[in-house]
Amino acid sequence: MSNGILADGYRYAGIVSGLRSEPNRRDLAVIVSDRPAAAAGVFTQNQVCAAPVQVSRARLPRTDARAVVICSGNANACTGEQGLADARRMAELTAKDLGCSPEQVLVASTGVIGRPLPMPILEAGIPKAVAAATPGAAALDDAAHAILTTDTKVKLSTRRSGGHALTGFAKGAAMIGPNMATMLGFVMTDAPVAPADLHRILKAAVEPTFNCISVEGHTSTNDTVFLLANGTGAPLTGAALDAFAADVLAVCGDLAKQIAADAEGANHLITINVVGTRTDAEARTVAKAVADSALVKTAVFGADPNWGRIVSAAGYAGVPFEERDLSLKVGPYLLYEKGRPLPFDAAAVSAYLKANRDIPFDLTFTLGTGRCTFHTCDLTHEYVSLNADYTT
Amino acid sequence: MSNGILADGYRYAGIVSGLRSEPNRRDLAVIVSDRPAAAAGVFTQNQVCAAPVQVSRARLPRTDARAVVICSGNANACTGEQGLADARRMAELTAKDLGCSPEQVLVASTGVIGRPLPMPILEAGIPKAVAAATPGAAALDDAAHAILTTDTKVKLSTRRSGGHALTGFAKGAAMIGPNMATMLGFVMTDAPVAPADLHRILKAAVEPTFNCISVEGHTSTNDTVFLLANGTGAPLTGAALDAFAADVLAVCGDLAKQIAADAEGANHLITINVVGTRTDAEARTVAKAVADSALVKTAVFGADPNWGRIVSAAGYAGVPFEERDLSLKVGPYLLYEKGRPLPFDAAAVSAYLKANRDIPFDLTFTLGTGRCTFHTCDLTHEYVSLNADYTT
Repeated sequence: MSNGILADGYRYAGIVSGLRSEPNRRDLAVIVSDRPAAAAGVFTQNQVCAAPVQVSRARLPRTDARAVVICSGNANACTGEQGLADARRMAELTAKDLGCSPEQVLVASTGVIGRPLPMPILEAGIPKAVAAATPGAAALDDAAHAILTTDTKVKLSTRRSGGHALTGFAKGAAMIGPNMATMLGFVMTDAPVAPADLHRILKAAVEPTFNCISVEGHTSTNDTVFLLANGTGAPLTGAALDAFAADVLAVCGDLAKQIAADAEGANHLITINVVGTRTDAEARTVAKAVADSALVKTAVFGADPNWGRIVSAAGYAGVPFEERDLSLKVGPYLLYEKGRPLPFDAAAVSAYLKANRDIPFDLTFTLGTGRCTFHTCDLTHEYVSLNADYTT
Repeated sequence: MSNGILADGYRYAGIVSGLRSEPNRRDLAVIVSDRPAAAAGVFTQNQVCAAPVQVSRARLPRTDARAVVICSGNANACTGEQGLADARRMAELTAKDLGCSPEQVLVASTGVIGRPLPMPILEAGIPKAVAAATPGAAALDDAAHAILTTDTKVKLSTRRSGGHALTGFAKGAAMIGPNMATMLGFVMTDAPVAPADLHRILKAAVEPTFNCISVEGHTSTNDTVFLLANGTGAPLTGAALDAFAADVLAVCGDLAKQIAADAEGANHLITINVVGTRTDAEARTVAKAVADSALVKTAVFGADPNWGRIVSAAGYAGVPFEERDLSLKVGPYLLYEKGRPLPFDAAAVSAYLKANRDIPFDLTFTLGTGRCTFHTCDLTHEYVSLNADYTT
């Protein structure tokens, strides 16, 4: 549940439409802005992108968004022309009962790829969801539940921002690899922000947050983050705008970390801090290689202090360095210093990995001032089980 | 065991030195050439490369190689100056009893990263291995066993080549990602080949073979493929040299496929055929993205016909295309045709995945004549178990 700080002028619903086979599983959400809202979006970089991504991207940026409609259980990806028509129809059904134009409605989906949307369910469900939309924390919680797939918990982040408020929610679980996987994020504010500023602020906030997490590095077809600002009056400028941007970054960072921590089957949240590369981009490249290594992730799962896997993953990232340029700490244990292995108590490090759920890796280079913090999780039997029979 | 075709003038040994904790586990191999051999090597691209890689790379190409010494159980990687001294000492011990210079001996290692080699074991073991070296299939089999780590079987490939012979063996199992992971390969021939030709032929043979397999995409610190040619007389030229190159390619391809099929915990060998991209490099990029996707690999393990994961992995590979440019077959089933999902019998495809160990994916683009064949395996509970407690 949220902490009670909610942006003004938004209503939410999350209903059981029947898209998902589990009984009483919420699977259809709407976000309604009572006032026309400036809206920005950031989307998957996948060449194969879902119909709702194509439809929403064409509608942004805009100054008069009224709603977002989101379904879970079906990604509406790899569905051809029919998929595009279905995504547009979802917006049309939402617009009808709000009395706005379909172009004022954005669409997002998450779930299985390659199956046509069961439109009769949505034809019946969307009007119900729009009718059910209400302000307040309980409705927000319903919406946050309705977008989940294999997530085990809702991801909410709310925050005061100057005299305004930010309300964010997201889903993750798997197919999470930069740049943004089956990762949906929605951030609403009642601050007044010019559309161009909104887009710039969202793009900057997504880069070090949603784009610095991975579960298995598989970039989804459906990644979407929307930022809606329905404030009236003069748009924020100067220091107030900068402070707002910092708050958007904080909300995105909070949601992204919740996604990594609740990844499919995860037992550990791994935070990879890379410092001392020539550039931030180099630091991110190294961090991502470590984060995506199945060998690193299984070792953390097994509490196996096999630190050579971390160093060797850094080595194949594609960033040039000499071994003497690198040191590695796992939690409080310095294991590798400027190219030399240090003697260490393997049983103690193993016990540390077993006892702690949050594991930091510190990779320190001596090449410059570049840095990146990246979040991932361990690779467990549960991940394999969840993904071995996702559709069947 | 080999088919009895063995290159002339080589002796082999694989002994139990005590490097590994399992009783009676062979862990130390030597290959001796009775005559000075032209030698070429191809090594890991990892910035963090093991001491034996550094030592061997500095000694190649050469015309007078006499031996290769290989230990398993310890990679001698991330071991600093001591590691380099230890790798050189392995060569020195081998050279001593052969009466050659240490520079005529090449070194390879595979196993845990970051631990100093237990040199007393090697000081005692290497002379025993050199003394034990004999010609013939039984000794070759011992050597092929001694280089294994988590492999479940030896990988041998032997072949006639013109009037000569090729003898190859290799190990793999995990930390297999292009370019070459903890992948060791040794190919010996009695053909006379000029060193420059040998290097060119080996490099060309490794690219579409050992560099087109992956287990989890983690490039090792120790990858090494050596090609030794101890033939006397005039070096091969022209058509004879081309035929020899084709045979080296065939041996490397055979060994690489054996590595993918015997990957850690693998239940399925997945062969990814990409055709119709603009270039071969694009085809390889797409194939590698599909091969490295944990979601694709778990779906095959679970016999889940979740083909959207294959298409979406192609989509994030970094090769530009439109959905209508791509069709996908899994085994005999056409599931996706020029951007449209086809109706299919999910139960039949699942049954096919359950009943077959070799699963081809055919990704057909309409962009050009590029092509690549890439081998990988599924991601299983057994892989997670094996890697969760490798060192402990």
